Amino acid sequence: MSRRTTGPEIERLIQLLAKLPGLGPRSARRAALFLIKNRERLLVPMAAAMAEAQEKVTVCSECGNVDTVDPCTICADPRRDRKLIVVVEEVGDLWALERAGVLNAIYHVLGGHLSPLDGIGPEQLNIAQLVARAKPPVKEVLLALNATVEGQSTAHYLTEQLSHAGAGVVVSRLAHGVPIGGELDYLDEGTLAAAIKTRQQI
Amino acid sequence: MSRRTTGPEIERLIQLLAKLPGLGPRSARRAALFLIKNRERLLVPMAAAMAEAQEKVTVCSECGNVDTVDPCTICADPRRDRKLIVVVEEVGDLWALERAGVLNAIYHVLGGHLSPLDGIGPEQLNIAQLVARAKPPVKEVLLALNATVEGQSTAHYLTEQLSHAGAGVVVSRLAHGVPIGGELDYLDEGTLAAAIKTRQQI
Repeated sequence: MSRRTTGPEIERLIQLLAKLPGLGPRSARRAALFLIKNRERLLVPMAAAMAEAQEKVTVCSECGNVDTVDPCTICADPRRDRKLIVVVEEVGDLWALERAGVLNAIYHVLGGHLSPLDGIGPEQLNIAQLVARAKPPVKEVLLALNATVEGQSTAHYLTEQLSHAGAGVVVSRLAHGVPIGGELDYLDEGTLAAAIKTRQQI
Repeated sequence: MSRRTTGPEIERLIQLLAKLPGLGPRSARRAALFLIKNRERLLVPMAAAMAEAQEKVTVCSECGNVDTVDPCTICADPRRDRKLIVVVEEVGDLWALERAGVLNAIYHVLGGHLSPLDGIGPEQLNIAQLVARAKPPVKEVLLALNATVEGQSTAHYLTEQLSHAGAGVVVSRLAHGVPIGGELDYLDEGTLAAAIKTRQQI
């Protein structure tokens, strides 16, 4: 609107909040108002948390994870099993796998997938460092890439690179199949075919 | 999860973001990661915007709006028509009406609605000041309260108070009717009855 309804500082906060994934212009306004109304409980601590994150966030020089320490919390954790490296496209994938809570491994974040049309080749991804890491005592490299065309062609490329890399390191990938809670009627044929082929005895 | 996946600073940012309306725990994680990845473009300016808002945000002593100046941008705007006061429950309602872009009035924010069960009586709301403002040159007080039981009983109470207050001031309310884009089949009987009763000749 051309008329000013509120001060430029609040307008700016709304505009910035609207850039976050999951918040549109309307919900950004609601969020800004909620922050302002909960000044002590939310706005003050969030401003501080963002200032601290802005200062401290760094990329792990070992695995490419983002954290406030380098090496990251996971790489520095002595209880993690260093024989298994889980390769993911993005940090968000790492977080998703951690939420599943079944892995106790270390990770390797590629920073995306191969996409020649966008000019993203092997040099643009964190691949050389993965090949360097995939040596004993590492016993397995699990390629936990997206089940998309790009993710799978990246996995294919990585498998080749890792086969050159050395003996004694197994390369694996996530299983395909019916998602928990998924209804067969809504699944694509590829997923169903994979679930049938890798069916398991009960 | 019991194991640490990331530094406490990032965890804290995620927890705070998850308190915003419209963001759940999962979208808060996505938002935090997006902020971290867009450090210069988003995280740094947002930390600054929040720090500035935290310092400057204040409540308008005339109308109860929140802004970074007092009187607020609207009350201080010389082009606003001071003959019409629009009464709203919350600042979010004021913003919503401003987005509609048809009013060029000044506002009065009550800070909620009457709710005796929650201990919210007339003294807890910004009502005495409204009665004091509703004097010439003000000609009309538009009660733009929610069409809920609480909003309407608050409107009823205000109408009474304002009738004591003085001569020459008209009290009005928003029209009820079919929302633009609304399908009759999905509307409640009360709305339909109101839309029929106040039907207009084409």
